Amino acid sequence: MHDILVEYVEESYDRSTKILEFNHPHDLREKLHLELPDKAENLDQILNDCRNTLKYCVHTGHPRFFNQISQGLDIVSMAGEWLTATANTNMFTYEIAPVFVLMERATLKKMREIVGYKDGDGIFAPGGAVCNLYAVLAARHKFFPACKRRGMFGVPNLVMFTSEQSHFSIKRAASILGIGTDNLILVETDARGKMSADDLENKVQQAIGRGEKPFFVNATAGTTVVGAYDPINKIADICSKYNLWMHVDAAWGGGALLSRKHRHKVDGVSRADSVTWNPHKMMGITLQCAAVLFKEDGLLEDCNSMRAPYLFQQDKHYDVSFDTGDKTIQCGRHVDVFKLWLTWRSKGTRGYEAQINKLFDLAQYLVDRIKAKEGFELVYDKPELTNVCFWYYPPSLREMENCQEKQLKLHKVAPEIKAMMMNKGTVMVGYQPLGSKVNFFRMIVNNTASTKADIDFMLDEIERLGKPLTWDA
Amino acid sequence: MHDILVEYVEESYDRSTKILEFNHPHDLREKLHLELPDKAENLDQILNDCRNTLKYCVHTGHPRFFNQISQGLDIVSMAGEWLTATANTNMFTYEIAPVFVLMERATLKKMREIVGYKDGDGIFAPGGAVCNLYAVLAARHKFFPACKRRGMFGVPNLVMFTSEQSHFSIKRAASILGIGTDNLILVETDARGKMSADDLENKVQQAIGRGEKPFFVNATAGTTVVGAYDPINKIADICSKYNLWMHVDAAWGGGALLSRKHRHKVDGVSRADSVTWNPHKMMGITLQCAAVLFKEDGLLEDCNSMRAPYLFQQDKHYDVSFDTGDKTIQCGRHVDVFKLWLTWRSKGTRGYEAQINKLFDLAQYLVDRIKAKEGFELVYDKPELTNVCFWYYPPSLREMENCQEKQLKLHKVAPEIKAMMMNKGTVMVGYQPLGSKVNFFRMIVNNTASTKADIDFMLDEIERLGKPLTWDA
Repeated sequence: MHDILVEYVEESYDRSTKILEFNHPHDLREKLHLELPDKAENLDQILNDCRNTLKYCVHTGHPRFFNQISQGLDIVSMAGEWLTATANTNMFTYEIAPVFVLMERATLKKMREIVGYKDGDGIFAPGGAVCNLYAVLAARHKFFPACKRRGMFGVPNLVMFTSEQSHFSIKRAASILGIGTDNLILVETDARGKMSADDLENKVQQAIGRGEKPFFVNATAGTTVVGAYDPINKIADICSKYNLWMHVDAAWGGGALLSRKHRHKVDGVSRADSVTWNPHKMMGITLQCAAVLFKEDGLLEDCNSMRAPYLFQQDKHYDVSFDTGDKTIQCGRHVDVFKLWLTWRSKGTRGYEAQINKLFDLAQYLVDRIKAKEGFELVYDKPELTNVCFWYYPPSLREMENCQEKQLKLHKVAPEIKAMMMNKGTVMVGYQPLGSKVNFFRMIVNNTASTKADIDFMLDEIERLGKPLTWDA
Repeated sequence: MHDILVEYVEESYDRSTKILEFNHPHDLREKLHLELPDKAENLDQILNDCRNTLKYCVHTGHPRFFNQISQGLDIVSMAGEWLTATANTNMFTYEIAPVFVLMERATLKKMREIVGYKDGDGIFAPGGAVCNLYAVLAARHKFFPACKRRGMFGVPNLVMFTSEQSHFSIKRAASILGIGTDNLILVETDARGKMSADDLENKVQQAIGRGEKPFFVNATAGTTVVGAYDPINKIADICSKYNLWMHVDAAWGGGALLSRKHRHKVDGVSRADSVTWNPHKMMGITLQCAAVLFKEDGLLEDCNSMRAPYLFQQDKHYDVSFDTGDKTIQCGRHVDVFKLWLTWRSKGTRGYEAQINKLFDLAQYLVDRIKAKEGFELVYDKPELTNVCFWYYPPSLREMENCQEKQLKLHKVAPEIKAMMMNKGTVMVGYQPLGSKVNFFRMIVNNTASTKADIDFMLDEIERLGKPLTWDA
């Protein structure tokens, strides 16, 4: 098994191998043997199952995999996760996870210090969406503690605010918590994708005027598509003025916290009541590893505790304040901290800084290349993070005047090239539309194995594949 | 790294090694080097960190670890998790997790067939608590679809029902969703810990009489402490009569679904609208692996979808109905299915049945031994699952007449013995009080490495440690 896995890792780093062996779902289903049989398969077959599984996996660690925010394969983090799987325990009590509970405390404390919190609390959760849910939940509890027992019945009509380019998990949190997606008010963004603080204040005032109860504002530090940083200090001023909970969703852009060069982008983050920060994004930790941090200590437990006597006995022989399980919305909880802790030690905070700076530099290289290259156009001129959004115009489109027909054709370019890329398995980049903007490539530079040559390869490949595209039919 | 991990596994299975090296939190913190340094540590130090971490881990795979419902270390599942960590991808789209998405579909389909659903839907979620949250969320959406957009404002006063011995995650779901824990009505249990269907119907009628809106009933198949199975068919009759969503929390007791001998305990489960079933419990899968199954197809997506255009593009070149990410309350989602799929293939459904039957037999052996042994008393006479709850009376207590003083002393026995066990590292068993019953040992038989000799060792160890206990001071 060890050999099979090591071979896969070596393959992943090898530029001459394909990123994936694409098959349509129904075809792939026929190639795999997914049946769960009545009788046991023998060891040879089990090892074959593993080989076969890996054969059709997308090599997310390949230096030319740019498709998702999480990319690259950090070997130390991977090894850390192997250890976690072998130790196979559960985060709910110190009793059965003594080392990991202490490690989580130490790591969260370090993360809070970096954010600029003096004290506070936090927890690792299964992904940034759940972290954001925690934040809204804690905010609701802060303002309406009776809701825990009595529910939303009798609570005034709550409203929340987030930018129109923020992550959909804020909207989903509104749905889950019984606030409702209509009560999430979308704030306008400027030409760079940043929240307009003026529009926020207007909308807060309007809501108050309608008799609604604003209580929560999400500021995004690194939007998913464009990589924009909302103006945290201006938003914090408004939150102070109107007594609103301020959350910073730095799931993606939190990496800048570790860089003295880029940290100014999150200036004011320590004024937030809560911060989401996913090490499985810019810190390159294997999936999954996400944390939510709180300025106020005790709130998380107060909000979520249920005091189950079978798990959180108060008459144990050790200091039970180390049993963190009652803070969570889960019961059992996977050990997500070890791989981060180990990787962090292997790089050091300064090593992380260098790695993150390098990614920013590589993104700048891509921006410069796009500006210099015929047929390419940036969607946003000056990216603040390592998202680089751009259009590619095949020669057949370049001469056309800008009109709806041209836009409709351009809209089809990225999906067509993407399909060809996947079939060839040479490179993977995402695409999408945004508001009135038709489909563009959303390139994420977050793979420490990638070099300038890989960036060039990607651009050239788009050109190679896209050049012949015409719509003569 | 591979060698370090293999050594740990061998140690875990070795009865002559201690289960843990107990240290109080502050002492352990001094023995570990938890700092996250500015400068990188070298490879030797990183490997030392791994050894040191494992040194103080609780060996949850040790044949005498009976402390938690999840216990034992299945090697195939562990290897499956190593592969998952190496493949390092995310379940949200077929695009980047083609094999795992198909595998999840095939495995959930098999699980639904075993439950007895003809069709339906499901998802793997980070633990049973989140599975139960999904169920309540889907139920609310089924009855009040407008809640997704407009929130709980205007929804009538919802109430839910669960037994007083059910898992606390039902209560927590009521809190999170804005229903409120006061609106979770606890139904009485009988002498064996099973929900009283009569009391349920009475309480439903009373709630209706008060003008409240009952909508959800949770029946537990295998309670956490006692291992009781609620009477599913009787509860289903009541749910039909009053048009209530019926959920079965078979997180723990779902293992019986795989055993023709024990399956009768969950008779009627296919009548439920949703079922939680955690393979990381009775199926011995490493943490974490939990599924929630739904009878109705489409509801999950309808309830949770947010249609993020950056992730779920509808103009991709493959059948996007395979992109399952918009069903979940997460965004990124860890691959939990592979280890289960691989382990299942390595045992076969019949092999699983044999394994589960063996655990039930071993629990019966423990029951018989307790009945035969002086100084031990069962809390519940005939366990239905492999939870065995019992008191140990040190000789100094045996002669005393039953009175409050005796109960208070008995209450201290289990914690004292537990503390000694942990300090010695010989065996680990949980304890707790329940209602008016003072602290008892809650032994869980769910470790496939355990034998009758380990059961005997555990009882003898309790006796050895507990015999000298007196309260003369």
